[in-house]
Amino acid sequence: MPRFFLDISYKGTNYHGWQIQPNALTVQEVLQDGMSKILKNKVEVVGSGRTDTGVHAVQQPVHFDFDLEMSKEDILHKLNGVLPQDIAANSIREVKPEVHARFDATERAYQYFINQSKSPFYENQSYQYTFDVDVQLMNEAAQNLLGEHDFESFSKVKTEVNTFLCTISKAVWFATDKQLIFEVRANRFLRGMVRALVGTLLDVGRGKLTAQDFVNIIEAKDRSKAGRAVPPHGLFLTEVHYPEDIYL
Amino acid sequence: MPRFFLDISYKGTNYHGWQIQPNALTVQEVLQDGMSKILKNKVEVVGSGRTDTGVHAVQQPVHFDFDLEMSKEDILHKLNGVLPQDIAANSIREVKPEVHARFDATERAYQYFINQSKSPFYENQSYQYTFDVDVQLMNEAAQNLLGEHDFESFSKVKTEVNTFLCTISKAVWFATDKQLIFEVRANRFLRGMVRALVGTLLDVGRGKLTAQDFVNIIEAKDRSKAGRAVPPHGLFLTEVHYPEDIYL
Repeated sequence: MPRFFLDISYKGTNYHGWQIQPNALTVQEVLQDGMSKILKNKVEVVGSGRTDTGVHAVQQPVHFDFDLEMSKEDILHKLNGVLPQDIAANSIREVKPEVHARFDATERAYQYFINQSKSPFYENQSYQYTFDVDVQLMNEAAQNLLGEHDFESFSKVKTEVNTFLCTISKAVWFATDKQLIFEVRANRFLRGMVRALVGTLLDVGRGKLTAQDFVNIIEAKDRSKAGRAVPPHGLFLTEVHYPEDIYL
Repeated sequence: MPRFFLDISYKGTNYHGWQIQPNALTVQEVLQDGMSKILKNKVEVVGSGRTDTGVHAVQQPVHFDFDLEMSKEDILHKLNGVLPQDIAANSIREVKPEVHARFDATERAYQYFINQSKSPFYENQSYQYTFDVDVQLMNEAAQNLLGEHDFESFSKVKTEVNTFLCTISKAVWFATDKQLIFEVRANRFLRGMVRALVGTLLDVGRGKLTAQDFVNIIEAKDRSKAGRAVPPHGLFLTEVHYPEDIYL
């Protein structure tokens, strides 16, 4: 059966994260229900990765298998009609049948949004953090994240992984007119990792930790050494990359 | 009594516009209640102008008279504490006692936001309009708005004004990554004017009207000749300007 990649966006506020679970509404469940409805068959979707409760996605690629009889444009149009306003279907592209949305992803990017004064416009989509921070200090500390490191200090404690090794290719703070944004790219992320990184870097920005403290925290491989995780509602999964040769 | 300008922002979704009215919640009422609470005296605020139900403001200046005993920073902090999340107090500055937030404004700027595909992220803050439009054609037509004209064709019919003359100093469409934005600046605006302009310019962008039709509509001074008003939720009052010598 042909396999397709579908890119979706969602506002995570009303969902208990991406992954299906009993007794809680998730993005995966709502998407599967919508697709099964318009394709008139039970469809399973596999995401590029989980997002936690309240976390948003600008681009979450998912794969599904189906003998499409409609055009891709028709499917997107109908799917957006049945999906709620907080989930949007953006594009569909056929891939080789063995390609997997999770295992074949080569890079993932997240952005964390902070507003430093009260704003009416970012409800549940930006973290209001009013302390003064030194962005240059945070950027200097963040440079220590680049490359392959064991990031156990920034991983949720109760997690089942074989390794805490991740290779970070970008970790930078930048400011727009209204917001402070942390962008981070890596081959993989551990559970709660971006939110723990942001919380710890904010401690550097406020002068509670030095850049050397930050290096020591990475090397400690101990979650209790790092700062508090910032709340989920400022976090967006923004991009997931695959090799170009996955597409048909 | 000293007079102050207070700049506020608000998301208009939950309000029946700016101006106080019986039996409906308005931004002015909520702001006055909040200020009266923290200043422990009844305070009246006068805005730079009205905004309609559902319209937002990035910068709405208001004036009020009071013998301040707290610092401006304290007032902003306390005011933001009592105001709901969808109204933010941004700055306070003392002005000469005779300065008026509405009558002394020299320029007002609005932006209208359009998303051309479904998005989870702009709830009530952008108009989803999925037809293809030619932005260059819309910009060519918009240039005819510049200067002083009678804009009765773009004014709500039931309105009490002495004149429909407005001087428009900027009228331009531009695109960001995700949105199409119309920015317009003028010394004054008529009721419903920006939304009627945007609706009519979109008709130009879709090819339903030519640039010459647009000129004819301006000259007709007849609301029935112009296009439909676009919905209020894409509209933001973004800036209000005053002469520099109003401040103390």
